[in-house]
Amino acid sequence: MDVLNSHVSIRKFSDRKINPILVKSLLYSGTKASTTGNMQWYSIVVSETFEDRNALIQLHFNQTAAKNAQLFLTFIADLNRFNIWCKIGNAKAGYDNFLSFFTAAIDALLVAQNVCIAAENNGLGICYLGTTIYNAKEIINVLNLPMHTFPVTTIAIGYPDELPESSDRIPITGIVHNGRYKNYSESEVRELYSYKENLELYKAFIKENKKETLAQVFTDVRYKKDDNEFFSEKMLEALKEQGFLE
Amino acid sequence: MDVLNSHVSIRKFSDRKINPILVKSLLYSGTKASTTGNMQWYSIVVSETFEDRNALIQLHFNQTAAKNAQLFLTFIADLNRFNIWCKIGNAKAGYDNFLSFFTAAIDALLVAQNVCIAAENNGLGICYLGTTIYNAKEIINVLNLPMHTFPVTTIAIGYPDELPESSDRIPITGIVHNGRYKNYSESEVRELYSYKENLELYKAFIKENKKETLAQVFTDVRYKKDDNEFFSEKMLEALKEQGFLE
Repeated sequence: MDVLNSHVSIRKFSDRKINPILVKSLLYSGTKASTTGNMQWYSIVVSETFEDRNALIQLHFNQTAAKNAQLFLTFIADLNRFNIWCKIGNAKAGYDNFLSFFTAAIDALLVAQNVCIAAENNGLGICYLGTTIYNAKEIINVLNLPMHTFPVTTIAIGYPDELPESSDRIPITGIVHNGRYKNYSESEVRELYSYKENLELYKAFIKENKKETLAQVFTDVRYKKDDNEFFSEKMLEALKEQGFLE
Repeated sequence: MDVLNSHVSIRKFSDRKINPILVKSLLYSGTKASTTGNMQWYSIVVSETFEDRNALIQLHFNQTAAKNAQLFLTFIADLNRFNIWCKIGNAKAGYDNFLSFFTAAIDALLVAQNVCIAAENNGLGICYLGTTIYNAKEIINVLNLPMHTFPVTTIAIGYPDELPESSDRIPITGIVHNGRYKNYSESEVRELYSYKENLELYKAFIKENKKETLAQVFTDVRYKKDDNEFFSEKMLEALKEQGFLE
């Protein structure tokens, strides 16, 4: 499938506005995704105006894709709406727990990916902002998210103003396991990552960051233990505050 | 987009085998999905033989889609491979935490949705088995999953032997929020769910289960508080055992 296979994340977007009817159609395609028990435990917050986007850019660490996008869609794991429906229906909701949160997060993520594919199929470019879970607390605040909701991911959308090359991937044999997980030997892993490690792009990364290996660029610069632990704690606190760890 | 918009979950599959070359092509389309930092923190376990599938069917509570499928794909949040790569590269991995698990889960779920869309585009039918996180502990065991991996979802795949109607969805206005989350009044929620509640299918559900409202079918029969709490606890324990809550 060409749309899937030619995916590449876009971080530079043009000024061209996105037709609101197109946005509606993307969201509609989103809602056709599978959802647990057809309960639709998600909501989508659309940030389109300059003010609305501006309130979020900083929380996404001012990353390029966020600064340039015409539109943010924040995908929310949402038990709140369902809980209200239960209350009206004289039904005792039991969804203030981790399993329910995670189930809702799955719902929200499948919807997000559908929206991305629909967007790309219509000539738009997208970039996932993984930072959503880093600053969930602040995003909850800015977006007025009530109890029993949680922001899971955000996509930045716009018309592409660049045409990046497709990202490298490790060989598919390194991803797929037949029947059972076959653990990797060190030499297998070395082989799987050898293509990546030999790309000029990454060699430049290592040099720029004054590291010995590409793995060190990830562990010491981009995704550091201390940061991960800090944001982990913060995310768990936010989950608790939102009522998902009762 | 027709493939997205005509999605419907399939639970009855024919005996027709899926060409292994097609399976490979679906998995390839999967790996083109976005992934945090292009780190590809996921693996896919393919269960194709009768024995491999049989070992999993029970763990998915013998649900119809699981019993009938020709193929299961279990999507794994996988930090193990990356950790080995870090070790080889003399880099100190810091991914034994909740944030890293959740980031990997996002990776795995976007891949899963790509595979589903590619499958449907090739005439196959799919059904998500949300039960994966209910019995993660046992699935970890059966699939030999090492530390720092976790099964996030499973898709059951095969050629459709039924043509169900498209599932009802609440109106899109009930899902989408402009700029900020606008909380729902009870009357708004009543309105949003009125179409669903008036479907004969659900009226029959209520009667069958001897309940007063549709919401009670969900809270008292299908997704019960006690079950949710039990499986929540179990999932959190499994996350701990797999080294994601250090």
